[in-house]
Amino acid sequence: MKWVSFNYKGNEQYGMYNEHEKTVVNVSALKDAPKTLLEAIGQPEFLEKAVLAAGSASKIQESEVKMLAPIPRPSKNIFCVGKNYRDHAIEMGGEASVPEHPMIFTKAPTTVSANHDVIPAYESLTEYLDYEGELAVIIGKRGKAIAREDALHYVFGYTIINDVTARDIQNRHKQYFLGKSLDATCPMGPWIVTKEEIADPHHLDITTKVNGEIRQQSNTSQFIFPIDEIIHVLSRGMTLEPGDIIATGTPAGVGFAMNPKGTLQSGDTVDITIEGVGVLSNKVE
Amino acid sequence: MKWVSFNYKGNEQYGMYNEHEKTVVNVSALKDAPKTLLEAIGQPEFLEKAVLAAGSASKIQESEVKMLAPIPRPSKNIFCVGKNYRDHAIEMGGEASVPEHPMIFTKAPTTVSANHDVIPAYESLTEYLDYEGELAVIIGKRGKAIAREDALHYVFGYTIINDVTARDIQNRHKQYFLGKSLDATCPMGPWIVTKEEIADPHHLDITTKVNGEIRQQSNTSQFIFPIDEIIHVLSRGMTLEPGDIIATGTPAGVGFAMNPKGTLQSGDTVDITIEGVGVLSNKVE
Repeated sequence: MKWVSFNYKGNEQYGMYNEHEKTVVNVSALKDAPKTLLEAIGQPEFLEKAVLAAGSASKIQESEVKMLAPIPRPSKNIFCVGKNYRDHAIEMGGEASVPEHPMIFTKAPTTVSANHDVIPAYESLTEYLDYEGELAVIIGKRGKAIAREDALHYVFGYTIINDVTARDIQNRHKQYFLGKSLDATCPMGPWIVTKEEIADPHHLDITTKVNGEIRQQSNTSQFIFPIDEIIHVLSRGMTLEPGDIIATGTPAGVGFAMNPKGTLQSGDTVDITIEGVGVLSNKVE
Repeated sequence: MKWVSFNYKGNEQYGMYNEHEKTVVNVSALKDAPKTLLEAIGQPEFLEKAVLAAGSASKIQESEVKMLAPIPRPSKNIFCVGKNYRDHAIEMGGEASVPEHPMIFTKAPTTVSANHDVIPAYESLTEYLDYEGELAVIIGKRGKAIAREDALHYVFGYTIINDVTARDIQNRHKQYFLGKSLDATCPMGPWIVTKEEIADPHHLDITTKVNGEIRQQSNTSQFIFPIDEIIHVLSRGMTLEPGDIIATGTPAGVGFAMNPKGTLQSGDTVDITIEGVGVLSNKVE
C-alpha cells in the first residue's frame, strides 16, 4: 500500500496511490476520516476500514491533484541519525568520526517539502548546499522503552528523504540543527510504503543521482545502527508517537566530500531511488 | 498580562492569571476562542478582544484547576541555545568552548511538563541528571530573515524553562538532542508574561536553587548572544512561527561542573527564579 497526501480543490487530503492507474483513492472523503494522514496513522482501525472501503471510494486522477509530502507538517521535528554508514562517516572526518553510539539531531517541521518541489539554492546563506539521500521510517504506534526485538512492530512504513544540508552553517554552529533546518530542505516522498511491502528494510539499494550522475550508491545493509536499534535507543527515555519520522542516515558520496566539491548549484536535479520505495526527485533553484 | 494553560473539568483550557486573587479568567470559554493558548498566540486580534472582555468573563479559583505548562504541546521541538553564558561555557569545556556563533539544538515536544510536575529521576538511564535554569522566549508572529532591530517585535512573551539534561547521554551521543529529550525533562512555566511587562529582557536576574541552596546566579545581561541576535540568526533561512519557544541558555553553576558533582537525585527540589517572570519549581522523583 502506498499512502499519499495531496492538495485537491484547495484542501489537504490523503489516500491510497495506484502507481499503474496513476490515480488516488480519496480516503479523506470517507465518513469519520481523520483530517490528515498524520492523524490517520494514529488510528489504525480507521485505516483498515479505509482499505476495505477502497473499492467503493471515489478515485481521482493524479493529474488533478498537487502531490504533497506524505506528512506535510509533522507534529515535531524529524529525527535524523548522523553518520550511520561507515563510509560516509570516514569521508566526513576519517576513522575517528565513525560513531560508537547513534548521533541524533533534528530538522524543523518547516523544512518539509514534496517530490518535485524546488529546493531553494540559498546562495546568500550558504556556499555548500549538499544532498543526502536517506531511507526514512514512519512510526505507527506510540511506545517507550521499546525492546529491539519488538521495534519493527512500531513501524508504519517507509519513505525517502533528502536531508539537504548547508555544510558551512552546520560546521559554524557546531550542533547540526541550524544547517539542517533551512525552509524546504527536507523533500520527502513521494509516498509512504507500508511495511508489509518491504520484505527486509535492511537490504534495500539506495542511489542518489545529481543531474543523472550517480553520487551515492549503497545498501541499507551497510547501516552501522539498524532500524530496530535506532528505535530502541530513541525510545529508552523518550516516547515515540504515530507519525514520527526517523531519517536513517546517508551513505558516502555527498558533494562536500568530493574533490573538487560537488555540492548543489541552481539548476541541479537530485534523484534519490530506494529499492521497493520509489524515486524522490527535486530541482535546485 | 500572565497567560496560563490549565486543566479544568477534564479539558485543556487557557486564560489570564491573576496572581493576587489566585484566579484565572477562562478565555477558552469566550465565543470563537481558539482551542489552545498555542493557537491563540497566532491570533492576536482574538487575544486583544479577550483582554477587553476579561471583566465580564468567568473566573475560576486556581485551586479548582490543574495548572499546565503554558504551551503543553508545542507544534515543534523547542529551540535551545547552547553555552550562551560565558562562565557556563568555560565551566563545561574551558575557554575553547565559548562559542563564536550560537549553537542551536532542540528538545522534543514530549519533554514539556508543568510547574510542580515531577521530574523523573531516570536512575536506570543516567548517572548525571542535571538542571539548567533558562529564560525562554515565546514567538508571537510568523517571520523569516528578521532583522536584529525588528526582532523583539516578534516576541509574544517570556517564560521559564528547566532544560533538564542527562549529561552522560548528551556526551555519549555527541549531538545534544537525545540527552536533552527524556520525557518530562522540560518543566516550563508557570505562565507566559507578555513582553509589555518586561522592560528589558537583557537585564533580568536569574537564580537556580537546589533544595534551597543557590547553584546558579546570574543576569541575562551576561548573554553572549542577546535575544535579538538569536531571533535574527534562527530566522535567516528558517521561518519562525507563533508559539515557537526559544530557551536562551543557562549560566554557570550546573551540577555536572561542581566538585563533587551536584547533579540531581531523587527527592531534590529545583527552583528557578527569573526577575519579573516568576518561579518554576519541580521535584525529582
